[in-house]
Amino acid sequence: MLAAIKRGTRIVCDEIADPVPGEGQVLVRTRACGICGSDLHALHHAETVARLYRAGGVENVIDPEADCVFGHEFSAEILDFGPKAARRFKPGTLVTSVPRVADQSGAHVVGYSSRFPGGYAERMLLTEELLLEVPNGLSAVEAALTEPFAVGEHAVAAADLADAGGAVVVGCGPVGLAVIAALKARGFGPVVAADFAPGRRALAEAMGADQVVDPASDSPHTRWQDFGVPATRAERARIIADGGKPGRPLIFECVGVPGVIQAIADAAPAKPQIVVVGVCMESDRFDPGISIAKEAEYRFVLGYSADEFAATLRNIAEGRIRAAQIVTREIGIQGVADAFADLAAPGAEAKVMIVPGAG
Amino acid sequence: MLAAIKRGTRIVCDEIADPVPGEGQVLVRTRACGICGSDLHALHHAETVARLYRAGGVENVIDPEADCVFGHEFSAEILDFGPKAARRFKPGTLVTSVPRVADQSGAHVVGYSSRFPGGYAERMLLTEELLLEVPNGLSAVEAALTEPFAVGEHAVAAADLADAGGAVVVGCGPVGLAVIAALKARGFGPVVAADFAPGRRALAEAMGADQVVDPASDSPHTRWQDFGVPATRAERARIIADGGKPGRPLIFECVGVPGVIQAIADAAPAKPQIVVVGVCMESDRFDPGISIAKEAEYRFVLGYSADEFAATLRNIAEGRIRAAQIVTREIGIQGVADAFADLAAPGAEAKVMIVPGAG
Repeated sequence: MLAAIKRGTRIVCDEIADPVPGEGQVLVRTRACGICGSDLHALHHAETVARLYRAGGVENVIDPEADCVFGHEFSAEILDFGPKAARRFKPGTLVTSVPRVADQSGAHVVGYSSRFPGGYAERMLLTEELLLEVPNGLSAVEAALTEPFAVGEHAVAAADLADAGGAVVVGCGPVGLAVIAALKARGFGPVVAADFAPGRRALAEAMGADQVVDPASDSPHTRWQDFGVPATRAERARIIADGGKPGRPLIFECVGVPGVIQAIADAAPAKPQIVVVGVCMESDRFDPGISIAKEAEYRFVLGYSADEFAATLRNIAEGRIRAAQIVTREIGIQGVADAFADLAAPGAEAKVMIVPGAG
Repeated sequence: MLAAIKRGTRIVCDEIADPVPGEGQVLVRTRACGICGSDLHALHHAETVARLYRAGGVENVIDPEADCVFGHEFSAEILDFGPKAARRFKPGTLVTSVPRVADQSGAHVVGYSSRFPGGYAERMLLTEELLLEVPNGLSAVEAALTEPFAVGEHAVAAADLADAGGAVVVGCGPVGLAVIAALKARGFGPVVAADFAPGRRALAEAMGADQVVDPASDSPHTRWQDFGVPATRAERARIIADGGKPGRPLIFECVGVPGVIQAIADAAPAKPQIVVVGVCMESDRFDPGISIAKEAEYRFVLGYSADEFAATLRNIAEGRIRAAQIVTREIGIQGVADAFADLAAPGAEAKVMIVPGAG
């Protein structure tokens, strides 16, 4: 079968052996698969991805030296079942799944495994138990967006919305867009979205952001006072002493490059709640004193639970999240190497979707 | 009156003018005043202290160029009242107070003000409204410990104790000891305290720590599994899937030097809640990836509320916190310069208490 393969630090398009489903596994045909920013990073820093997964307690991680077929944001069609399958779905059923597949050695991350190919290949193995049937006639591309939007659902679930006097979303790539979508799916607002790229700001509006800001000309933090969020601890204390309940600033860091966390701490009002969703895999510098002076709170999040994943699929299927809008390009497997090169220049694209057979 | 004065980067003992109480102010005689680690830092980096207070929204901050009389952990005796005083207390009454004094220009931090002397002087001005009478025949030294122990009360109030499967306190200087005391005053346990200095470990035990650890030979994080706290996110997920409720690691950072926050993130089990109480005023380096992989949460805290201050005084007065044990030395105002030199070598002392007229 055809696959776009990480080989060293290059993506090459080549034939690889067809996978054969083992016990509890299902052979599927990939219908759509998104390219994730983490894939771009993993191409050059697979050892960092392995180290971080290991820090999180995952045992079967990517072998940085071996070939790997990326792709953890997918939808697929059932082809065949391995031994002792429950056969819950008919062949041809469109499914999606959290990107995990189990064998005798435990769970593997589909898309960051050197043993199991991810969605950059024509076919994959998945675990039958984890499959979700795609409802409501949702397209394969929309279903493949469940994974990136589940990241937003998880980030918003980690936040304390009850106290928040609005939210600022810093960075409107796919992660930021997913956060905006999850906030608006709950009816939360106001949401102010910040990105340097006009195309991404337009997508933020399409996801429901109440205001968008170009950080080159304006800070999203200038809006807090309009939302009744006091700038300083002293002002907060005064409002509380007068029997009031000041709103708290809630900020989602969705950029994931060094320096952004401290820039947010510097600009935020007192008592910020900062949810770090952007995945910065490099060492960073920060100034604890500013976070102390403002009594900042940080919640670092990663991934999602199976329930959050399923809830996101429902949100997309029932129209609460209009996911398809973030797809800026569809390509075939042959187009992956070029897309990686294009995505290295930030801002031009949001989600690039591989549709095997297309392109 | 006699005062130990910050002049440049030295502490000099000299006579200064007696303060005269203004409207709403009270003239008091300092009975006891603790030396705080922040004072040691402020001697050489007053500009950092000013910058951080300003970041927290405090307007009247220390002038780094001017003389300053430190001392924000005090008890004092009423001498006289300014104009229009309510005269709630008789002269001679022993009081303590949050270290704030107000004049026409607003609130000033007693001990980091270039206008109002702190407790390193024989006499101070305080705001009558903020005074708390010292109950139960508590000694002046014990009453002066309200402030540093209130820091522990505030840190513990900021933590989510309900989910915690025990607590690790990293660093057993006065801040760590106050955290241990506040945890034990609530009946919370187990509490594991870590410090390189045997004397500080002994004080941690005196404050009620259930276990003490010398990090040179053992990590406090080896204890989590004994408390039913799973090491990894995968283990946590498994326990939750089986209907269980895994404990969360709760860690108090009470050291305040660069590198400690990241060292805690590296060593902690998954989903740690890290309360940063140590005041690190220097730039620091950290690795966001590890915090992301473990889904770490950080709560940076500073100071305390007036209610927490009053509750701490009650805890000391009613024997729930045996505060006096942390005092390792009493000195006179003349001894402050030498004490600063001694305290620069960490571990030898816990709380050094100035008792004007002593030494």
